[in-house]
Amino acid sequence: METVLTGKNYEVKFGQGLPTVFIAERINPTGRKSLAEELKQGKLDIVEKDAIEQTKAGAHIIDVNVGAVGVDEVDLLPKAVKKVMEVTDRPICIDSANHKALEAALNVCSSYKVLINSVNGEEASMDYVLPLVKESGAAVICLTMDNRGISNDPLVRFEIAKKIVARAESIGIKRENLVFDPLVMGAATDQNAGKICLDSMKMIVKEFGVSTTGGFSNISFGMPDREFLNVTFIVMAIMAGLCAPITDVMMKSLAPTVKAADFLAGRDPYGMNYISMYRK
Amino acid sequence: METVLTGKNYEVKFGQGLPTVFIAERINPTGRKSLAEELKQGKLDIVEKDAIEQTKAGAHIIDVNVGAVGVDEVDLLPKAVKKVMEVTDRPICIDSANHKALEAALNVCSSYKVLINSVNGEEASMDYVLPLVKESGAAVICLTMDNRGISNDPLVRFEIAKKIVARAESIGIKRENLVFDPLVMGAATDQNAGKICLDSMKMIVKEFGVSTTGGFSNISFGMPDREFLNVTFIVMAIMAGLCAPITDVMMKSLAPTVKAADFLAGRDPYGMNYISMYRK
Repeated sequence: METVLTGKNYEVKFGQGLPTVFIAERINPTGRKSLAEELKQGKLDIVEKDAIEQTKAGAHIIDVNVGAVGVDEVDLLPKAVKKVMEVTDRPICIDSANHKALEAALNVCSSYKVLINSVNGEEASMDYVLPLVKESGAAVICLTMDNRGISNDPLVRFEIAKKIVARAESIGIKRENLVFDPLVMGAATDQNAGKICLDSMKMIVKEFGVSTTGGFSNISFGMPDREFLNVTFIVMAIMAGLCAPITDVMMKSLAPTVKAADFLAGRDPYGMNYISMYRK
Repeated sequence: METVLTGKNYEVKFGQGLPTVFIAERINPTGRKSLAEELKQGKLDIVEKDAIEQTKAGAHIIDVNVGAVGVDEVDLLPKAVKKVMEVTDRPICIDSANHKALEAALNVCSSYKVLINSVNGEEASMDYVLPLVKESGAAVICLTMDNRGISNDPLVRFEIAKKIVARAESIGIKRENLVFDPLVMGAATDQNAGKICLDSMKMIVKEFGVSTTGGFSNISFGMPDREFLNVTFIVMAIMAGLCAPITDVMMKSLAPTVKAADFLAGRDPYGMNYISMYRK
């Protein structure tokens, strides 16, 4: 099963057994004061710069999130998506908790096959987002949480995944367009966070064979040398079935380490991608 | 369940959920011409030097293997073990396919609790080695192979582990003294080698809760930048339950990366070991 996204004459495929691809995370004002400030003023200079830099750094997909206090996402998200489409050919991941903003943004990129970020197991979320996914033909990130919040029990996360698969398939969304996020939490506050996430992912992949993602920078919150921890956790997750992490593609160690991990996980037959790093 | 080894007033513990420890692999003439040549002449200068250097580099346990063409292991293995005991306080891993050499070496380190490397699922191997383990009170590395060779099916490796557990327990060996090696093969010749090894390990750990090991340098055979691949594979294996890899402790990236992996795998509560790297 392959998840396929498209940009401007640019196609990205990911799925179990395929090489890992990167969803670039930087266009997101959470914890980025300067970007939040710009977005509040309706400016998109940092968005433009980030789109260009992340593409150069090897992003396969560009996440676009403009959710900050004082920002009208329904107005600004389509503008930001348009700006990103102007400066890079990469597929877009439209990221908002506001389904009206998702809908408005989908309207400006109907020539792309995008990834919607996200739906979760709450009734309201499935009711609003899944029809958008169906109508637009997009793929969607499915968070394994619901109105009860985020469970520490992998089985509960798995059951939520099951519910989302059933609901999506009942309205005709193909399983290849469901990209599961088993939820990465900080390991500093819960030493089992990494294991819970990966155990959830393995159960979901084993049962449904679907593509997977996750906000892989969360694991290192509050710790020194976050890049080191983030990349190390991505390595662990690749062996457990991670396909398309949402991550900081500006991290220098990311691409080579993921090439090594893909080879070790059997996603790079004969190590051709890995070996290519050592050739002029 | 904890596996405990002792050296000279030095104790090493490992097991599921505990920090990863290193079995230093260099005292082994396989693929080391200069060492093989010295051992053939009965000289132990490289053995001595390796024992000292590996201890300085952070080895928790020193593997001692003198098996080369033209070497009488029954004579030389005890001498090499003695030499290592003179220059380091670390516990010893006595490594030979010759059970008489194992027996002779055990006699010179009866004040230690050692690790015997190894028994496998063949009748002859279990018949010769397990009584030595029982009598000496040592721990033993159990290879998941038998007279049929090495299977590519994790279930077959698991069944061999089951057979060894049953046989060992039937003569009174405690399960904590069984250290399972799910067999690391080269990924260059079989792209599934990594997955087969780790799937085998996960099944064995889940069923028996035992400690695990493996020759983690095998994975990278024939590939460029072997250190990078070896350390990356150890990261993946730690999440799957690896406790005590047999590895090259001289690799600079090993110790810090394993500290990050232990934290992410929940083996370093609050990340105290990890954070200590960033403190003066």
